[in-house]
Amino acid sequence: MALRPSTVVIENVSPFHDRGLHPVKRVVGQTLTVEADIFKDGHDLIAACLKWRRLGSPEWHSVPMSAIPNGNDRWAASCVLFENAVFELTIEAWKDAFHTWQHEIEAKVNAGISDMQLELLEGSLLCEQAAQNARAGGMNQDSDLLLSFANSIRSASSKNILETLQQPALSALLEHHADRVESSEFFISSSSIRALVETPPLSTAVPLYPRVIVDRKAALFSAWYEFFPRSAQGDGSRGSTLRECLDRVDDAKRMGFDVIYFPPIHPIGVTARKGKNNSVSCAHGEPGVPYAIGNRHQACPNGGGHCDVAPELGSLEDFDWLVEQIQQRGMEVALDFAINCSPDHPYVHLHPDWFYQRPDGSIKYAENPPKKYQDVFPLNFHNPDWRSLWEELTAVVLFWARRKVRIFRVDNPHTKPVAFWEFLISKVQQQFPDTIFLSEAFTKPKMMLALAKVGFTQSYTYFTWRNTKHEITDYFTQLTQAPQKDFFRPNLWPNTPDILPFFLQFGGQAAFVIRFILAATLSPTYGIYSGFELCENQALPNKEEYLDSEKYQFKARDWSAPGNIKPLITKLNALRNRHSSLQSFDNLAFHHTDNDSILFYSKHSPDELDPLLIIISLDYQHPQEGFIEVPMHLLNLHPSASFTVLDLLSNEQFLWHGSKNYVSLTPHGRQAHILQITRKQVTETDYLDF
Amino acid sequence: MALRPSTVVIENVSPFHDRGLHPVKRVVGQTLTVEADIFKDGHDLIAACLKWRRLGSPEWHSVPMSAIPNGNDRWAASCVLFENAVFELTIEAWKDAFHTWQHEIEAKVNAGISDMQLELLEGSLLCEQAAQNARAGGMNQDSDLLLSFANSIRSASSKNILETLQQPALSALLEHHADRVESSEFFISSSSIRALVETPPLSTAVPLYPRVIVDRKAALFSAWYEFFPRSAQGDGSRGSTLRECLDRVDDAKRMGFDVIYFPPIHPIGVTARKGKNNSVSCAHGEPGVPYAIGNRHQACPNGGGHCDVAPELGSLEDFDWLVEQIQQRGMEVALDFAINCSPDHPYVHLHPDWFYQRPDGSIKYAENPPKKYQDVFPLNFHNPDWRSLWEELTAVVLFWARRKVRIFRVDNPHTKPVAFWEFLISKVQQQFPDTIFLSEAFTKPKMMLALAKVGFTQSYTYFTWRNTKHEITDYFTQLTQAPQKDFFRPNLWPNTPDILPFFLQFGGQAAFVIRFILAATLSPTYGIYSGFELCENQALPNKEEYLDSEKYQFKARDWSAPGNIKPLITKLNALRNRHSSLQSFDNLAFHHTDNDSILFYSKHSPDELDPLLIIISLDYQHPQEGFIEVPMHLLNLHPSASFTVLDLLSNEQFLWHGSKNYVSLTPHGRQAHILQITRKQVTETDYLDF
Repeated sequence: MALRPSTVVIENVSPFHDRGLHPVKRVVGQTLTVEADIFKDGHDLIAACLKWRRLGSPEWHSVPMSAIPNGNDRWAASCVLFENAVFELTIEAWKDAFHTWQHEIEAKVNAGISDMQLELLEGSLLCEQAAQNARAGGMNQDSDLLLSFANSIRSASSKNILETLQQPALSALLEHHADRVESSEFFISSSSIRALVETPPLSTAVPLYPRVIVDRKAALFSAWYEFFPRSAQGDGSRGSTLRECLDRVDDAKRMGFDVIYFPPIHPIGVTARKGKNNSVSCAHGEPGVPYAIGNRHQACPNGGGHCDVAPELGSLEDFDWLVEQIQQRGMEVALDFAINCSPDHPYVHLHPDWFYQRPDGSIKYAENPPKKYQDVFPLNFHNPDWRSLWEELTAVVLFWARRKVRIFRVDNPHTKPVAFWEFLISKVQQQFPDTIFLSEAFTKPKMMLALAKVGFTQSYTYFTWRNTKHEITDYFTQLTQAPQKDFFRPNLWPNTPDILPFFLQFGGQAAFVIRFILAATLSPTYGIYSGFELCENQALPNKEEYLDSEKYQFKARDWSAPGNIKPLITKLNALRNRHSSLQSFDNLAFHHTDNDSILFYSKHSPDELDPLLIIISLDYQHPQEGFIEVPMHLLNLHPSASFTVLDLLSNEQFLWHGSKNYVSLTPHGRQAHILQITRKQVTETDYLDF
Repeated sequence: MALRPSTVVIENVSPFHDRGLHPVKRVVGQTLTVEADIFKDGHDLIAACLKWRRLGSPEWHSVPMSAIPNGNDRWAASCVLFENAVFELTIEAWKDAFHTWQHEIEAKVNAGISDMQLELLEGSLLCEQAAQNARAGGMNQDSDLLLSFANSIRSASSKNILETLQQPALSALLEHHADRVESSEFFISSSSIRALVETPPLSTAVPLYPRVIVDRKAALFSAWYEFFPRSAQGDGSRGSTLRECLDRVDDAKRMGFDVIYFPPIHPIGVTARKGKNNSVSCAHGEPGVPYAIGNRHQACPNGGGHCDVAPELGSLEDFDWLVEQIQQRGMEVALDFAINCSPDHPYVHLHPDWFYQRPDGSIKYAENPPKKYQDVFPLNFHNPDWRSLWEELTAVVLFWARRKVRIFRVDNPHTKPVAFWEFLISKVQQQFPDTIFLSEAFTKPKMMLALAKVGFTQSYTYFTWRNTKHEITDYFTQLTQAPQKDFFRPNLWPNTPDILPFFLQFGGQAAFVIRFILAATLSPTYGIYSGFELCENQALPNKEEYLDSEKYQFKARDWSAPGNIKPLITKLNALRNRHSSLQSFDNLAFHHTDNDSILFYSKHSPDELDPLLIIISLDYQHPQEGFIEVPMHLLNLHPSASFTVLDLLSNEQFLWHGSKNYVSLTPHGRQAHILQITRKQVTETDYLDF
């Protein structure tokens, strides 16, 4: 068929931005609704469909799109993607010759025009063409039916023509088999014509299909527990081994966590090794920082770098055993992927050209003047041999993926090129589509979003420092809005080994309770760094860093120390598993309260009748009380209705009246309500049971 | 140089949308400000520049971009384009190695670090590399200077190093000659990496440079006067010829118009010719509708189609004479480009395959059941021979462009494919970049915008039906906002030969005054269809169409009939020429009044000290009075200052106090104020003159 320019314009396709440059994300089973402006010249009717296929598959799936009523040329269609894979999409739109013809006939019949011999002949020719297409596709039965429709149209009278052409079967068959001349593919639309006008050949107008990364459900919904394997037993005089981690794993399991996340487990460098509290001098026997990775002087099967386990923790076999144990308990392992090389890393020896070399031949260590990080050599991602470096780092991730690790928490991705992450993540997910990458980018907002755009499954957030009602409302409103809600998935951490926020330092147990409830309910994915459950809050003076951090030393701990909040954690993780409204992110809505220390939000899942209502005091010091405004319309309640609510934290019940209701919260005992609507008294018919 | 992936991310480039798919528009001498999010991994400093070149030119012009203070990685640069041509742009950004190094040295000096031998060596190597680049580019003087800088840096001490490296000449030379490794071109940024990962070769990631169409000033600022040449003398018994049009042209000139726009001047079909008031029967001698184009039975040099003048109007030579006369008067001609073919058009004879053929071999005429337009055959823009049709229609426009017509008002472009217009306009503007296309698309909003996106210079608007304060404020706020303000230029018409709005029908002279002032001040480009100045308002019953329209007949008229508003038109066109604030579009701001029948807006040009204030009553029936709120901050006035204003329409002066001031308008006499701030009394110093 000769090339013809398209006539239908397809524009502003959501949720895709920048003409589909970056993929959006969904999890298996989630609905994807695609909208577009679709229109053409003249008065012809249009048909359009949304098409999708797994990347690499030749076959398209398809669903018709519909014009949104009064939508001003906006069309929509939804699909549900059930496979953990990357999909590509396109929209096809064309002049709907049959319905255009049908519309013309109807108008003429209504106008009392009776001589329509030619028009009927045109309609029957459309049917005959479709019959021919059906036969070519091997659909002989459809073809025969279309031919009989062609005959009855040709011989119809102005009296019975409407009856004939309005038969649903005719419409369905023509939708299926009609010519789609003038079809127009996604994102080309009229601008493909530029190719006809100018020098570059048409082939440069290759359509760029937008993509959807469909992750497994854990990408959206999971609770992470981070601990240092060497601290598993809380012995301050020596480190634990991988084989000694099961108690900690079981404790996390009891608390309801899904993911066990280990900071780096690799050999630790000895050159310029840091001592306690980040001291530049290190006493004999101090364990070093797990982030100063690589020690080619230790005996390891893979040279002592990123594909080895530190001998003091155990062997690769011990690691495999631990992974197996964790998986048997229904949990999974997340590993830290920290591209830090100690001076003893085998790369320094084998690939000095991968690093920054100085005029005297030495390798440049990390610096932030006046601070020197002589225990870490940064890699030069744009060295002339960049491609082998990028391939090697990808191979590291694949190495652990083959050992059944499918979650990687990536350390400081914002200090490596964005392009590198696009390279690595797409290569890993090609082999292991179930791999999840968490970006630990505590950096400027646009870089955080860019990392998510090029493939990071999840990201750390500013939640760690958002404490007031205003801050939380602002930030989470932004996170749940387009475009970022479609590609940026927050993973909320109230603390990390690097960050002990002032709020936790100053507020004692009440602060830990508040931050935990916020993390576990504002987002379906969150994590805590171990010690949080014990309300550990000893900091370096005037810093948001831990005193005697286990990053630098063995740490003595009582994992069941008094004052811990393990019961609350256990209860809330159980609630998260029971309520689908706590398992997605962009179903968050904030509501009014008359007290700025009381935050009120709801989460609503299409699978549940009513939203959960979450009311929390942000004050760890004083009791707070006030009136909240229940969103009666979301509860499908009359503004003055009475209804009962059940507090899922305390099991108390309350009888509430209308939208305005009083709450009273205290730093100790009742920091929050998580309310389920249990009984509605909307109308008289509710009393008919009595 | 080996291919390396980029490290700088460049995103969200404004004013370009959809990744630069469609050009934005400016006129010669207008400023174009380009903004982008620019950032990279790590802590390196970035440098970026905006580059542009005329389409087809190999040479780029360039200006440095700067980070907007507190702009969150937003960068900006401006350029002024002085040629009537299409330009393409790109942004280049790279790691700024010199300033990154300089920053490091400063931090170390400030931290009291004194041993910096290696660092200084690194700096001097940067200078030497730049010196080498300068020499390669033939800039020997720069090269020598850089070498001497290299020496002084190498031998600097920690005491004098800051002095050395902060020399402006050093910075300037390095900005000019330093390596731009890791440079990243517009719109590729990190995503080019996809090409390294997947099957399509890197070449498909060819950068798509966004474009700017730089039009001549008339594209933005002009006043149009439309008349039918056959009505030039207002004789109801016969039509005037082209040679008889000069009186009308001179009258338009006196009123201050710049563009004389003629409806189609081509031979008119005889088959199914329409009579008076669109009657299907036509008496002998009736002149026909100029939009039923083509009569191959008349003797014409080019076959009687779109490249001929109707013999009853004159010859091509007469046309050339008239164009010359008009241009001598400092005005120019706009021609109608109406792709309507009468059954007598030569195309029907020569290219029946360009039309819609019916099963009986006949050609389909236009229909909108029950209405039949048997005098017009629509063209099939997707017929198998579409390319010759598109080329032929392009040739028609080029034919008239060569006869010095450089403005085309395009009839009903929304009933032809958008792709066709992109094809035609770009081809014509390649030869005649000064060609202006006005889209007469009274259709759905997205189609109107699409036509502007693919190249139409200007567009008709919904202004014709926007009468209330709310309607006007809403619509013009939308038109002056991004993104459409950058590609959609309104041309406001209070009436057209097809539309006599109810407002004008009902409101008499006062309505014409109101609509005229609005059109001539809300937009720098507007037009009237002749008869407007005479306040002609006889309509077909219950329709917004003219009674006895000259589209179908000869029209008797007194061009100086009493009650005409020619003095107002003359005055306002003169004001438009004098005040640059009335010569651009997106400088419009609406202000508060306490009366919904009084509209208040201002127009401010950077070339003028103060904005013009325009206050207009929208009521043609009753006097209206009320308080308006002067935007004192825009006038740089204290909120309670007194100041004098001069009404440019009436020459009255008013002494006003503070922001709230009283106005009183009447349907006859004082429908509006156009106020210039003449004297400010801001502070005591203003009285020092006395």
